[in-house]
Amino acid sequence: MTSALAPQSSPAKAPIRAIRVGILGFGTVGTGAYRMLEDNREAITRKIGFPVQVVRIGIRDPSKPRSLDAALFTTDLDSIINDPSIDVVLELIGGTEPAGALVERALRNGKHVVTANKELIAKHGSRLVHLAKSLGLDLHYEAAVGGGIPLVQPLKHQLAGNDLLKMVGILNGTTNYILTQMREEGADFEAALAEAQAKGYAEADPTNDVDGFDTAYKIAILASIAFGKQVPMDGVHREGIRSVTAIDMRYADALGYAVKLLGIVQPVDEDKVLARVHPTLIPKSHPIASVRGVYNALWLHGDFVGDVMFSGRGAGSDPTASAVIGDLIDVGRNMAVGGSGSAIPYDTGLKTASIDNLETGFYLRLRVQDRPKVLGHIATIFGAHSVSLAAMEMKTLSQGKGEIVFLTHPCQEKNFRAALEDLGAERMVEEISSSFRVEQAE
Amino acid sequence: MTSALAPQSSPAKAPIRAIRVGILGFGTVGTGAYRMLEDNREAITRKIGFPVQVVRIGIRDPSKPRSLDAALFTTDLDSIINDPSIDVVLELIGGTEPAGALVERALRNGKHVVTANKELIAKHGSRLVHLAKSLGLDLHYEAAVGGGIPLVQPLKHQLAGNDLLKMVGILNGTTNYILTQMREEGADFEAALAEAQAKGYAEADPTNDVDGFDTAYKIAILASIAFGKQVPMDGVHREGIRSVTAIDMRYADALGYAVKLLGIVQPVDEDKVLARVHPTLIPKSHPIASVRGVYNALWLHGDFVGDVMFSGRGAGSDPTASAVIGDLIDVGRNMAVGGSGSAIPYDTGLKTASIDNLETGFYLRLRVQDRPKVLGHIATIFGAHSVSLAAMEMKTLSQGKGEIVFLTHPCQEKNFRAALEDLGAERMVEEISSSFRVEQAE
Repeated sequence: MTSALAPQSSPAKAPIRAIRVGILGFGTVGTGAYRMLEDNREAITRKIGFPVQVVRIGIRDPSKPRSLDAALFTTDLDSIINDPSIDVVLELIGGTEPAGALVERALRNGKHVVTANKELIAKHGSRLVHLAKSLGLDLHYEAAVGGGIPLVQPLKHQLAGNDLLKMVGILNGTTNYILTQMREEGADFEAALAEAQAKGYAEADPTNDVDGFDTAYKIAILASIAFGKQVPMDGVHREGIRSVTAIDMRYADALGYAVKLLGIVQPVDEDKVLARVHPTLIPKSHPIASVRGVYNALWLHGDFVGDVMFSGRGAGSDPTASAVIGDLIDVGRNMAVGGSGSAIPYDTGLKTASIDNLETGFYLRLRVQDRPKVLGHIATIFGAHSVSLAAMEMKTLSQGKGEIVFLTHPCQEKNFRAALEDLGAERMVEEISSSFRVEQAE
Repeated sequence: MTSALAPQSSPAKAPIRAIRVGILGFGTVGTGAYRMLEDNREAITRKIGFPVQVVRIGIRDPSKPRSLDAALFTTDLDSIINDPSIDVVLELIGGTEPAGALVERALRNGKHVVTANKELIAKHGSRLVHLAKSLGLDLHYEAAVGGGIPLVQPLKHQLAGNDLLKMVGILNGTTNYILTQMREEGADFEAALAEAQAKGYAEADPTNDVDGFDTAYKIAILASIAFGKQVPMDGVHREGIRSVTAIDMRYADALGYAVKLLGIVQPVDEDKVLARVHPTLIPKSHPIASVRGVYNALWLHGDFVGDVMFSGRGAGSDPTASAVIGDLIDVGRNMAVGGSGSAIPYDTGLKTASIDNLETGFYLRLRVQDRPKVLGHIATIFGAHSVSLAAMEMKTLSQGKGEIVFLTHPCQEKNFRAALEDLGAERMVEEISSSFRVEQAE
């Protein structure tokens, strides 16, 4: 940290005539970034103060057809990070390795790095940002969270004076698309997933999205910035959306809620946060409830700013390219004035609270024997665990069965879990069909 | 512009131990900023890398009771901008003078400046930003637009690679509060204004807000950044909300629209924009339509990022303080690495198109003689001016009068105006009660 105290007066260098850029990875994001540099060349040059020149593009498969000059491409990624003429590396490969080693070596070779790699930053951000800072280099990663929506830098800069009291994000477009289809078309999870796959919004193996890993990386990055210490990934409680059904969507809707996969972070103590990703009922009156389809959004509450929301396209070639090029413009401006490396790194060591300590409302759907005494039994079990009820809907199914849906007032997570266990052991309760956490209106 | 090409290697200075700050103006925003520095001292110190020290506060009226040490205050504002120990001046006075002269002299004395002054930046931003840049200093003004919502810096940085295709803002909390009350409570303009004044949301002289000046300054600042040239204030078409009635609110609602005071900017040509502020019907499905009360929002569409929206509290002591302190944190980080003055100034000379050239839909309410032929007459007049109708509502008033509301398809503004003139001359049309522009769904 002390290095921040001494101005790093760089030795007088020759005037910069262009930023020389090497790109690692030329998939969706890489091609988008290249195209943006071409399409908006004049405006980008004006905004940086000098032109950007893509010197070399590192790829894995040289046999893929490409529309650009073949001389631009190489499969020798090392040749890019070792090229002394390259000022900035755009790491657009993804995943922790080899991307992590390449980023680290690029920094050690004196190159600024712009990356869209959420997994890498979520797991190794603190170390890499410290490394960049110690070398007087920029390491930017706006594209790692929320596609083109400015989130990372506003948290680092314009909102940095706030104590963050809560942060709620829809950070994965695939799951938001699936949940929107389930809500608006009445589709079940499997059908909505298949449609998302057919449209190219979901991958053949959808685990990273639908099981909440992607959202967990992203909310961890945002929380690490906001709280100034890296959120350990194993401290993020994570549940995906496979358990959400069209039936639950309909009940939630009737009760005044949307069901969203949310990443939520709250401080619970000095140096301790509760970070979680799970399907959540959120009141329709909350601004994030109306974020539809592949859109992403971040809602946050700071002690001075109050509540702020950002929304937009959270993924895709063009929006992600927008964030990458925005970062590149920043790198270029900093190079021009000798002001690189101004970001304050975040340390490690942030503690995370167990979800057991969460106080939240719950939605619960049960299949029961449709007999007069069942409600009394259930109410007794809830009461014994200090869980009080806020709303209930009941309907008779065929053959003497009933379905009951409860909303609880906020209660301790562990109390609710204990009540669930007792309900599971209760003869009149035939099935605990589903349960989800409920956010209160803000 | 060439100065951007040469790194400004600052001479080796003594390590920075604190940022020394002078505050000009200690009203709502100044007290908020001071309180934020006190309340969040530890986190702010960590995020900058060293502490902030408020050295001196310049005020006009020394007789006002203040809770702080009297030695902090001075009525001699010059003593602050001439104090060689002060690094950063927060200009929180507002208005063009004396604020403008103070900002300019503070810069010439080598001080970074953070300002919340929308009028000053809207009118003199290009000159002041050029001056700051030429001196290697930061001039930040996030708080001038949208209170605590990050708008200025995201446009300058994360979204800078985009060609902006459209920008639509609700940028004045007072008018949005009044319009929300009119819509939700059925209040008329005068009653809603009186209530806003009673609640402290509107000033005794509400002209600056309700006649659209405030919105015009703000949208001009955002457009100047986005298009890289200062929007001349006399090129911004401006209408306020005094003409909006509760009746129009109800018709708009029934037709599927909200009525909002919007600042809207679109490019129309190389180096030419159409910038306008007026009450507008906007489809309820547009995300900006649901921004209620004193909240502000900016919706924009960029060629790569697609559509992005930012919303939050656009005014008030604490949200505005959040933006001022965010800027101050940036100034501090740049000081630490010797990277001040990285912003690329915008020039003057942006051309603005006349509203006559706008192509937009219109809402029109007429009082007519309730006779069989009136509709035919009106339709003939519209047709003669190439204005085609999208929707109509008609109702009979008392005594043989009728009221008709039309929505037109997008047409040339000047054609619609010409049709209005002919309608005014038509004997069966007793009154042109109101007309507003209509935004299409995005």
